Amino acid sequence: MSEDAVGLAAVTVLAVLEQAYFSLQVIYARRKYSVSPPATTGPPEFERIFRAQANCSEYFPIFITVLWMSGLFFSQGASSVCGLLYLYGRFRYFRGYSQSAQGRLAPLYFSAQVLWVLIGFSCVGVLLAFCRVYLALDLIGRLTEA
Amino acid sequence: MSEDAVGLAAVTVLAVLEQAYFSLQVIYARRKYSVSPPATTGPPEFERIFRAQANCSEYFPIFITVLWMSGLFFSQGASSVCGLLYLYGRFRYFRGYSQSAQGRLAPLYFSAQVLWVLIGFSCVGVLLAFCRVYLALDLIGRLTEA
Amino acid sequence: MSEDAVGLAAVTVLAVLEQAYFSLQVIYARRKYSVSPPATTGPPEFERIFRAQANCSEYFPIFITVLWMSGLFFSQGASSVCGLLYLYGRFRYFRGYSQSAQGRLAPLYFSAQVLWVLIGFSCVGVLLAFCRVYLALDLIGRLTEA
Ligand SMILES: N[C@@H](CCC(=O)N[C@@H](CS)C(=O)NCC(=O)O)C(=O)O
Ligand SMILES: N[C@@H](CCC(=O)N[C@@H](CS)C(=O)NCC(=O)O)C(=O)O
Ligand SMILES: N[C@@H](CCC(=O)N[C@@H](CS)C(=O)NCC(=O)O)C(=O)O
Repeated sequence: MSEDAVGLAAVTVLAVLEQAYFSLQVIYARRKYSVSPPATTGPPEFERIFRAQANCSEYFPIFITVLWMSGLFFSQGASSVCGLLYLYGRFRYFRGYSQSAQGRLAPLYFSAQVLWVLIGFSCVGVLLAFCRVYLALDLIGRLTEA
Repeated sequence: MSEDAVGLAAVTVLAVLEQAYFSLQVIYARRKYSVSPPATTGPPEFERIFRAQANCSEYFPIFITVLWMSGLFFSQGASSVCGLLYLYGRFRYFRGYSQSAQGRLAPLYFSAQVLWVLIGFSCVGVLLAFCRVYLALDLIGRLTEA
Repeated sequence: MSEDAVGLAAVTVLAVLEQAYFSLQVIYARRKYSVSPPATTGPPEFERIFRAQANCSEYFPIFITVLWMSGLFFSQGASSVCGLLYLYGRFRYFRGYSQSAQGRLAPLYFSAQVLWVLIGFSCVGVLLAFCRVYLALDLIGRLTEA
């Protein structure tokens, strides 16, 4: 299975490297603003960085899940491109949110839209496979014949 | 691999849609109770919705992991059914917790039990595969012969 | 796909069991220190246990992702061993952090190093596969010939 999913795997490893970067930023911020664990509150500058990483962490498993559902059931190429766009959006979200709460909004809408595209691809891909497997119905074939 | 895991994929995509719903509920609650990021504290009504989504997010990767371990190593059908039950339990958990902390308990026990069933399926499935691959021992065959 | 990934699956199921253990510890701590949901603050002893579990949950999807990327694209054996080391490190992290914030540091560095090894394996494995698939270039073959 692995060889033909190398594009998805590359985006996946990039996503992990991005999360590592966000975690390191929180560690530096904890030192800079002297917010020692288990504390998670401090000056607004720290709390924005902490929440930016928490939000990215919260969506990481959702992103990886739809990246692979979309890649395996719809299109690896299109999913990998969307994956890269999402990671770019998340990077800008983290940077923006670190500067100001307002600064997170534009990249948030961008990455949310890309995530919805991946969710859409996943729904279409799984639905088509469902029809093929359980209803022996090739929807695409039918539509192109019509 | 993908065609024969379409049941698991369908439950997986549903799980992602459910997480999207929970996230949107937090965004509406932030507006309704004017709790602007990076703040995460506010009136109890907000904090229950925030924590309900945080708890569901925390268990999402664990659920997806055991759904696929159980589906690939034990039974796709049984795992998909348990997956749907779990998502139903989580939906009631979120709704209940939004109303009151007490309201989360019944659905919590229900979804925890379903999760333990999926963990049990995963343990049995992986153990049987382990015996087959590393000990050339077909435990099921032996038990049915006995 | 499943039979030849049984080692990764075994480590994955162990990781889920470990997360279940951490969650149960938080539930007991909530009772012991009477910190009822949705509250997440209380005596330092509680907050350390709460944060220890939150931190382990935050890295769980990242760990599972690199365990499988490294296992499928680099080496299942080496990845499974690293996986077991990581889970041991996380267990000591949780126990250490529960005792004192300082107590989390040694196991943190240990499990972070193991995670970076898994990330390294993933990068090498995906890069080699990328060269094979898209550049028809067998880097390992070339290096061993040279
Ligand atoms: N969410 C983490 C991200 C960075 C991280 O993993 N930090 C390590 C080293 S400071 C840690 O042990 N954090 C303690 C915690 O998460 O409560 C944090 O808030 O610190
Ligand atoms: N955990 C999130 C769930 C909803 C969400 O993703 N909200 C977006 C738009 S308000 C966000 O940027 N949240 C900031 C944050 O999580 O700190 C939250 O608490 O807000
Ligand atoms: N992160 C959880 C870990 C344990 C857990 O899942 N607890 C259940 C039963 S007390 C719960 O509903 N927690 C409420 C919450 O997470 O806000 C917590 O802080 O409680």
